[in-house]
Amino acid sequence: MKERRLRILLVGAGGTIGRAIAAELGARHAIIGAGRRSGDLHFDLADPAGMREALAGAGPLDAVICAAGNTAFAPLADFVAAPYGASLHTLGLADKLLGQVNLALAARDVLAEGGSITLTTGLLAEEPVVEGSSSSLVNGALQSFVRAAAIELPRGLRINAVSPGVVAESLDAYAPYFRGFDPVPAARVALAYSRSVEGAQTGQVYRVH
Amino acid sequence: MKERRLRILLVGAGGTIGRAIAAELGARHAIIGAGRRSGDLHFDLADPAGMREALAGAGPLDAVICAAGNTAFAPLADFVAAPYGASLHTLGLADKLLGQVNLALAARDVLAEGGSITLTTGLLAEEPVVEGSSSSLVNGALQSFVRAAAIELPRGLRINAVSPGVVAESLDAYAPYFRGFDPVPAARVALAYSRSVEGAQTGQVYRVH
Ligand SMILES: NC(=O)c1ccc[n+]([C@@H]2O[C@H](COP(=O)([O-])OP(=O)(O)OC[C@H]3O[C@@H](n4cnc5c(N)ncnc54)[C@H](OP(=O)(O)O)[C@@H]3O)[C@@H](O)[C@H]2O)c1
Ligand SMILES: NC(=O)c1ccc[n+]([C@@H]2O[C@H](COP(=O)([O-])OP(=O)(O)OC[C@H]3O[C@@H](n4cnc5c(N)ncnc54)[C@H](OP(=O)(O)O)[C@@H]3O)[C@@H](O)[C@H]2O)c1
Repeated sequence: MKERRLRILLVGAGGTIGRAIAAELGARHAIIGAGRRSGDLHFDLADPAGMREALAGAGPLDAVICAAGNTAFAPLADFVAAPYGASLHTLGLADKLLGQVNLALAARDVLAEGGSITLTTGLLAEEPVVEGSSSSLVNGALQSFVRAAAIELPRGLRINAVSPGVVAESLDAYAPYFRGFDPVPAARVALAYSRSVEGAQTGQVYRVH
Repeated sequence: MKERRLRILLVGAGGTIGRAIAAELGARHAIIGAGRRSGDLHFDLADPAGMREALAGAGPLDAVICAAGNTAFAPLADFVAAPYGASLHTLGLADKLLGQVNLALAARDVLAEGGSITLTTGLLAEEPVVEGSSSSLVNGALQSFVRAAAIELPRGLRINAVSPGVVAESLDAYAPYFRGFDPVPAARVALAYSRSVEGAQTGQVYRVH
């Protein structure tokens, strides 16, 4: 089978998972890294205008991957009924959730025919941990969105999500939240992004946990 | 087994599913109905201050059920990358998603020890239909939130979600979106709310589809 060299925009290329994706896919494809301050292109997931501008200037793209997105980790007791913009859920909703949804919508408008979009969720969609309720909410939303958006994308575009387990290289920061969980090497998580981009499925959630 | 008479706040008591819940649970328990304009208590899910005030004035409560919540049904092509407050997703995020999350958080602060919270999602969390991507996103978010919140609720409180299929009594409005789906009578959907309130499980999603 003949493999084609793709141009891939990778948001979060400088992060723990992003670096492993760049190592895996960069061996066969051209990677354009993006981040708020790191990478070749600079934009914030939470700023759709800047995102659209960056995508418009990125040249022809065959794939867009997001390995970024922030949520609030906090005890459920800290969450109180609060207005839309003032909720403790706002970070997760505006950044990791709508940021990635907006990236998918902006990518839809610029990707080459048959191109792919790959978003990142996480094991908390299915496996709860203490202080993780907002991350769970955001990850569950993304997984259902990806399954639904897949059946309405134009021009043969595809969309999938990768749901990483707790990454071995991130344990310094996250271990206390994930006692008893089996850590996954970032290189193994990166394979799921390769499968999404270099495979042909759509509407899938690739779980690496 | 001796059954105790419960005081149950039912948001959306005047709706298609709410009326069936009131018929099922009203036979054994006291139901206080709520809605924006219908029912005994008036508040909007999207207005957390009004919600907290209504709950504070509702008297002792053993259960809070929500059978309400609005989302935007629209083609994926109508969704564009847009800021947090200006997104076409805002209705679903502020009303059905955060409205129910806020109701759960407000209920946590007033429910009697061992009380229960039951939210409503829907089959679109798992089964996509055209124009349903925002509803899918919201329903998936709620299901993951319920599983996560369950492990952090205080005072033996429980939380579950019911995921109805397309309701037979709603087919006049929804049939074109759900061709080929097996409609579920509202009375059968109502049983899942009874199971959540009168059973003892927590963190469950009861699928009626
Ligand atoms: N690590 C884990 O164990 C794990 C497990 C499950 C899921 N996940 C998910 O995987 C994703 C990546 O995690 P990670 O641990 O690799 O993160 P990380 O090491 O903190 O790296 C995040 C990367 O994304 C960029 N970034 C962050 N916020 C951004 C924003 N709002 N807009 C644009 N770029 C942004 C950062 O660069 P700049 O600072 O330059 O913006 C950085 O390159 C997150 O969504 C996380 O929830 C991680
Ligand atoms: N029907 C179905 O086939 C189906 C299938 C799957 C999921 N669901 C979900 O089940 C829930 C109920 O559906 P339904 O068909 O029974 O709805 P419905 O017949 O339209 O009734 C909705 C009820 O909720 C109240 N309500 C609506 N928005 C509200 C808000 N923002 N704040 C407070 N009360 C509100 C309404 O009263 P007021 O007008 O007085 O506020 C009404 O009593 C919805 O979340 C829906 O997505 C329905």
